[in-house]
Amino acid sequence: MNDLAHSIKVIAFDVFGTVVDWHGSVAREIEAMQLGIDGGEFALAWRAGYQPAMKEVMDKGEWIILDQLHRRILDRVLDDFGLGSLSEAERRQLNLVWHRLDPWPDSVEGLARLRSRYMVCSLSNGNIGLLAEMAKRAGLPWDCILSAETFRKYKPHPDTYLGVARTFAVEPGEVMLAAAHHSDLEHARNCGLLTAYIERPYEYGRDNPKPVKPWSANTLHAGSIVDLAEQLGCGAEPGE
Amino acid sequence: MNDLAHSIKVIAFDVFGTVVDWHGSVAREIEAMQLGIDGGEFALAWRAGYQPAMKEVMDKGEWIILDQLHRRILDRVLDDFGLGSLSEAERRQLNLVWHRLDPWPDSVEGLARLRSRYMVCSLSNGNIGLLAEMAKRAGLPWDCILSAETFRKYKPHPDTYLGVARTFAVEPGEVMLAAAHHSDLEHARNCGLLTAYIERPYEYGRDNPKPVKPWSANTLHAGSIVDLAEQLGCGAEPGE
Repeated sequence: MNDLAHSIKVIAFDVFGTVVDWHGSVAREIEAMQLGIDGGEFALAWRAGYQPAMKEVMDKGEWIILDQLHRRILDRVLDDFGLGSLSEAERRQLNLVWHRLDPWPDSVEGLARLRSRYMVCSLSNGNIGLLAEMAKRAGLPWDCILSAETFRKYKPHPDTYLGVARTFAVEPGEVMLAAAHHSDLEHARNCGLLTAYIERPYEYGRDNPKPVKPWSANTLHAGSIVDLAEQLGCGAEPGE
Repeated sequence: MNDLAHSIKVIAFDVFGTVVDWHGSVAREIEAMQLGIDGGEFALAWRAGYQPAMKEVMDKGEWIILDQLHRRILDRVLDDFGLGSLSEAERRQLNLVWHRLDPWPDSVEGLARLRSRYMVCSLSNGNIGLLAEMAKRAGLPWDCILSAETFRKYKPHPDTYLGVARTFAVEPGEVMLAAAHHSDLEHARNCGLLTAYIERPYEYGRDNPKPVKPWSANTLHAGSIVDLAEQLGCGAEPGE
């Protein structure tokens, strides 16, 4: 472990689901709006539109930021839920819920501990403004916000994973991607990055636990970001 | 002042000279290398190559990051100072001095105070990795690092100033650029941004004081970043 801890220079984090609880946060905000629909179901439907919408954009070679993509999906999902009468101002406000996602309970401490030893950055398909506002509100202590927007490509395009290494002038094998999604990690691994799986069994809500079994291909497997920090020898005190 | 303080959403900072003391930092590192040359003069020569080298890149429509630009200039300046025998490893190490610049004494506190009320970001021609490493070492509490590299254009290209507003989905008039250089502020103003001049009389060293007179076209004129924070009502306690 010691050799591994020393060979890592940069740890890049997937954000939605890995660092913040998108399902719980979106569901709570929808419930608070009292629209007469189930917040959890709405959150799932909105998020379900994300992969296909992103793929559409990538296939077209188009570039739009995630805020715009979220809005396209939102308009469709509102219709599906019989809420087509929601005003433009309400839609705009609701769309920004992705800037207001709450972190998992261990995220802030885990990132702060890792930051005492490593360059710690985001690598998310969220746009830069979204990630900066989220970080400011939630207190996520990034050294640097890297986004699909930085590289004008969405994950899993190799330019994003390799872009982290290029940004810090290090080898891909000196970068670790931490994510709660095996597929994201697999793409990173194919680019030569180290990988850490973070268990987030309730990413889709308490009613929809997801399997969080280890994949042996990952470099590390952690129960939380704090656990990852402990595995890498980053103690509770900064610099320890 | 109250109206102004409320209309600002984002404060973007020029970095070299405004937040960090490039001259003193480069000079100290050169002196420590005991090369038998004057560190201050070397720093001035290196920096003097910056504007023409950047212009060359922009005119060609080429994109290279500032680390590469610094290296091109360094190789020339080393020859001029009769230090052509410096090894590749020494050149590489020396070139990274721009990642290790020390902040002015008020910078960290000033940025932290402003951050309690505003989105505070960099807007520098330094590349993202350079700015992130500098921030980590110096403790600069950016909410977000924005760089010429983010926009693939160097200041004073309008895409950089307007890029800040676009990143945060605000109007150009809701963004303030803070800089120790009137020309940078002038270009920002031409894009509709608010401007704050920060006095840094010793940017070029104690032996070369530069004039720091107010220009009436700037929105604010401040003796330091802490002074800017005070003018905008950001007290010593976070959130005050």
